[in-house]
Amino acid sequence: MGGDNAPSEIIRGAVLAANESKTIRIILVGKKDIVEDELRSLSFPEGSIEIKDAPDVIETAEAPVLAIRKKKESSMVVALNMVKHGEADAFVSAGSSGAILVGGQVIIGKARGVKRAPLAPLIPTAKGACLLIDCGANVDARAEHLAQFARMGSIYMENAVGVRNPKVAIVNIGAEKEKGNALVKEAYPLLETLAGINFIGNIEARDIPSGLADVVVCEAFVGNVILKLYEGVGATLLGELKNAFMSGARSKLGAMMAKPALKDTLKKFDASSYGGAPLLGLKSLVVKAHGSSTAKEIKNSILQCETFARQDINSKILEAFSEEDMVSMDKVSSDNVLSENEG
Amino acid sequence: MGGDNAPSEIIRGAVLAANESKTIRIILVGKKDIVEDELRSLSFPEGSIEIKDAPDVIETAEAPVLAIRKKKESSMVVALNMVKHGEADAFVSAGSSGAILVGGQVIIGKARGVKRAPLAPLIPTAKGACLLIDCGANVDARAEHLAQFARMGSIYMENAVGVRNPKVAIVNIGAEKEKGNALVKEAYPLLETLAGINFIGNIEARDIPSGLADVVVCEAFVGNVILKLYEGVGATLLGELKNAFMSGARSKLGAMMAKPALKDTLKKFDASSYGGAPLLGLKSLVVKAHGSSTAKEIKNSILQCETFARQDINSKILEAFSEEDMVSMDKVSSDNVLSENEG
Repeated sequence: MGGDNAPSEIIRGAVLAANESKTIRIILVGKKDIVEDELRSLSFPEGSIEIKDAPDVIETAEAPVLAIRKKKESSMVVALNMVKHGEADAFVSAGSSGAILVGGQVIIGKARGVKRAPLAPLIPTAKGACLLIDCGANVDARAEHLAQFARMGSIYMENAVGVRNPKVAIVNIGAEKEKGNALVKEAYPLLETLAGINFIGNIEARDIPSGLADVVVCEAFVGNVILKLYEGVGATLLGELKNAFMSGARSKLGAMMAKPALKDTLKKFDASSYGGAPLLGLKSLVVKAHGSSTAKEIKNSILQCETFARQDINSKILEAFSEEDMVSMDKVSSDNVLSENEG
Repeated sequence: MGGDNAPSEIIRGAVLAANESKTIRIILVGKKDIVEDELRSLSFPEGSIEIKDAPDVIETAEAPVLAIRKKKESSMVVALNMVKHGEADAFVSAGSSGAILVGGQVIIGKARGVKRAPLAPLIPTAKGACLLIDCGANVDARAEHLAQFARMGSIYMENAVGVRNPKVAIVNIGAEKEKGNALVKEAYPLLETLAGINFIGNIEARDIPSGLADVVVCEAFVGNVILKLYEGVGATLLGELKNAFMSGARSKLGAMMAKPALKDTLKKFDASSYGGAPLLGLKSLVVKAHGSSTAKEIKNSILQCETFARQDINSKILEAFSEEDMVSMDKVSSDNVLSENEG
């Protein structure tokens, strides 16, 4: 029931996924009568989609912690509890980010050894996609959190996306090792000595779109700024170019001629083809799809869960976090649950 | 002598400025014989350009504090000292950012009441330009610094750029007042009650390119990320579009037809037309031009100093900072000089 285009696009996305995968089983959690109505006109393999009734809805404007605590019958809380109790393997939602982040950590819970669960979307670059980790789950992170993000991100890129020995970099304001704010200066040496990652050093924001790194590590406030500015600059620039193309007969004709070639480029930079952002480091998989997701992005978000499960990424994260090299990070006391206003 | 294209583009930029302004007087500080050689083939109004010899050069890789302290005969130190002693009104450089920021604060010094001197470039938006403040002068800022940035930025946009009652916003990860990290949550109420600014609340990074605010306040690390990502996304996207246009005969022809219309759009997003970034809040004006500046950007950076002086912006900042509403901020102890590794 969450997201700008819910429930219609969510349901259509689920139907697309069911038709494409053949093996996946999808449980649509939401207001039963509405979901049933929408499903009626759509076709999908028998038994691939079922409905679980959840009469309540968490709105984007609600305070996440309060909403998760009070709305026990919301689609989000019901679905997260199903995952918690093993009735489902993964949770996908285009609803309130805050509620997903809080709900994932409170209801499903973090995996053993994981200090913080980072939200890690894939963003398009000239060379494919890179994982931006963390992007909004926890502001004011500490250096040891960033080191964990680097490790989790590496495992994800290697296993879910198939990038061998992914290049890991930390976002900084200069390429030199000594640059940065207090957090980055503290995190750099941790990353340098961390086993199991291919650390290539600092990355300046200007080098992210060209695809210099496969895993881009940063604190959530910075990650959120990067993610949203990426969208904003792209949208504004493309909007202005479109206006330019439409400004006269000559440019319109030119645009028509160049269209097939342009389409491929724009497709490359279309974030929706990557599905949603996983909230890594939980006991089960939680995927946050973009609030404005269309059926296509929902489909990709759902199919992404199959890869995640098939590659058994959670076990790989658990394994990595029980290795000796990560033990030193375990000294830090466990974080409190997110405060009301975070995310 | 600083910048990727020094000294040639710097000298050409000075000559362009001298020819355009007619009233400005420019002192080129650098290796005398080299500068003389370059100037010989160029024409400019008599007496508009003179040369001051400075045999040393500060390299980008040098540690800023050390370089400023040791290289007394570098073009940067000599020029900053000329400004300090009233032999010049403003300093423009495309050299090492770190050295400019340190040199500006150490040699010229901060204006009375100013806690930190922010670097504030203009960035292109769909509606014109907005001032991004702070962008690299001081990492790990405090809330009261951000409030001062908001005030200085407002004065600059109103007087130097001519935007009446500029809209001031603070970069945050959500539009709601309660969102953010510790710094932003502390700064928000300060900005809300600050006299003399038109505070419109939080701005999410995605809304910066559309031109929602005229003055975008943020801590320097975040500002630096925004500035560089802006460049990076734009450059990558335009590069990919260009490749698409060039990919076949049909798209090439289309591009040719659309070119005049596209040119205007690209011009709008061309940061070089805005000149350099002022380092605000010093006793005199310091302008940091982009390291890759061409003659055109240098020209604009120099001419921008004339506006700054004509509008007497420094006096306006001084005046604002002696008003009662800013006095409360004065309680905070003075900052130390930037550490070696900052900027």
